[in-house]
Amino acid sequence: MIQVAINGYGTIGKRVADAVRQQPDMDVLGVAKTRPNFEAETALEKDFALYAAIEERADQFAEAGLEIAGPVEDLVDEADIVVDATPSGIGAQNKSMYEAHDTPALYQGGEDADLVDTSFNARSNFDDATGADHVRVVSCNTTGLSRVIAPLREEYGVEKVRATLVRRGGDPGQTDRGPINDILPNPVTIPSHHGPDVETIFADLDIDTLGMKVPATLMHMHSLNVTLEAEPDAAEVRELLADESRLFIIPERMAIDGSGKLKEYAMDVGRPRADIWENCIWEESISTVEDDLYLFQGIHQESDVVPENVDAIRAVLGEADAAESIERTNETMGIGL
Amino acid sequence: MIQVAINGYGTIGKRVADAVRQQPDMDVLGVAKTRPNFEAETALEKDFALYAAIEERADQFAEAGLEIAGPVEDLVDEADIVVDATPSGIGAQNKSMYEAHDTPALYQGGEDADLVDTSFNARSNFDDATGADHVRVVSCNTTGLSRVIAPLREEYGVEKVRATLVRRGGDPGQTDRGPINDILPNPVTIPSHHGPDVETIFADLDIDTLGMKVPATLMHMHSLNVTLEAEPDAAEVRELLADESRLFIIPERMAIDGSGKLKEYAMDVGRPRADIWENCIWEESISTVEDDLYLFQGIHQESDVVPENVDAIRAVLGEADAAESIERTNETMGIGL
Repeated sequence: MIQVAINGYGTIGKRVADAVRQQPDMDVLGVAKTRPNFEAETALEKDFALYAAIEERADQFAEAGLEIAGPVEDLVDEADIVVDATPSGIGAQNKSMYEAHDTPALYQGGEDADLVDTSFNARSNFDDATGADHVRVVSCNTTGLSRVIAPLREEYGVEKVRATLVRRGGDPGQTDRGPINDILPNPVTIPSHHGPDVETIFADLDIDTLGMKVPATLMHMHSLNVTLEAEPDAAEVRELLADESRLFIIPERMAIDGSGKLKEYAMDVGRPRADIWENCIWEESISTVEDDLYLFQGIHQESDVVPENVDAIRAVLGEADAAESIERTNETMGIGL
Repeated sequence: MIQVAINGYGTIGKRVADAVRQQPDMDVLGVAKTRPNFEAETALEKDFALYAAIEERADQFAEAGLEIAGPVEDLVDEADIVVDATPSGIGAQNKSMYEAHDTPALYQGGEDADLVDTSFNARSNFDDATGADHVRVVSCNTTGLSRVIAPLREEYGVEKVRATLVRRGGDPGQTDRGPINDILPNPVTIPSHHGPDVETIFADLDIDTLGMKVPATLMHMHSLNVTLEAEPDAAEVRELLADESRLFIIPERMAIDGSGKLKEYAMDVGRPRADIWENCIWEESISTVEDDLYLFQGIHQESDVVPENVDAIRAVLGEADAAESIERTNETMGIGL
């Protein structure tokens, strides 16, 4: 059994913990958190061993009546691998600790690409992570783009990708985020960081991305254009994408018009936390004009990287190949809408 | 003096009425409205002659204490030209009335292109409207796209335009519109109507557009990609666009990050109704990657077509050429941020 430490038990960490626990070949050794809050309480209720991410704050947990198993260094030391799910930039600060304990580490997409040996998307470059000490699971948006680009490259070749990412201003619980009633070019300069980030997965890809922020919290929305090296008709592309296990082609008959109904659907089918691990591509949006492919996809910023983290664990430790790992993760988590 | 009738005194009609009144060569003969409300009251306070757009409802105005000059047919009959600023589809119903009175008519962008002799954008195809009986001033978004495309075509040639239009869900006063906290592909199918609509201005243009709706009311936002037939550097394109009188290149030094600050700026400089008649293009967003040009522009949906309506009046009646009319309209309205 792979003993997994999870450092950071917020939006991503708590989801990765649940997903890892579901895996037949993995155990959650423990989770680490910087301060007591509702998530720390829930971690204990779920019988996760709770570690203090900052040793000096351990007494805060005691004051809150939460039992701490020890400092995060103990957890890292005992683990086969650590999933760092701390906020952007903290992962970089933690790297030396992981190295000191000789524990391979996964980081999240908020960290710089040059912090790690390789960036990772299960569908696109699983094998690059094998044996690596430091691997970055790319961000929700980069994951969403990579999952679509990989099969298109393999099947048709990709001349150029142009994408406008209309991003939710913040997650539902992020009460300090904006905008209210505005549409912000964000960043105003072009390209946004997403294009170069996708190039950490596909080194030779030509991609320009533009980012915006809007007053929504549920999901991101991508307006995607891929100029292909072939001119398939739309039906053919729909079939190709429908074959991908982590792409949910929203059937037109479902009458799902946006993120709200997507999340409602996820709740109706019993998804934990209403998570949508798949890219959600509107079936009728998949269109071709000569060699230009267009589509809209919704990306659930809180959860689409969760199965990628699970797969990255196996990739780093060489415990399965891409197809085996993806299938095992999908099956245990219930991926495939 | 050109005697102008304005049928419909809502978002567009009331703005066109004010702009026409400012013109040295035009008079507002009267404005017509279907029912009494705050706008009807304001029309009378501004000394516009108020006509009943639906004769049977004239007594509603009397009951509200608002004096009616007569039925809209009287207004249309006496006018040299009528600006139809009624809601989408009503203009088509009014066409036979305008024909019966032999009064040339301007329609708004919500009407079908095949209702009219020509669609109109002052910068792009002014002369096409001369002598026409029925002319459609294209919508706010199509106007915004046309104003940018025209100089690019002239200077560099345009191979292809791809645009994602992130549209405000409704105007600030439209309390029945959505979405709340959602990002909707809208329409889900591609292209949105905007691409074909721009082709009513530039018949031979290759353009694909994608539309969305978001919870914002202030302005639309365009993520624009134009593949040029040349490879100018960004600075050159910025200069070209800065020379256009209805394009406001937002200087980076102003630190305007979105629609909210743009409207705030419009209020600070004393714009009536905080209107922004110009396209608002973020200076630092104007970027080129080989032959691909990218930029973000904000489009004020309530007002950018107003100067276009004024110019269309002169175009139809042959009272000025494009350069003269645009200059006169700009000067009287104070266009040119």
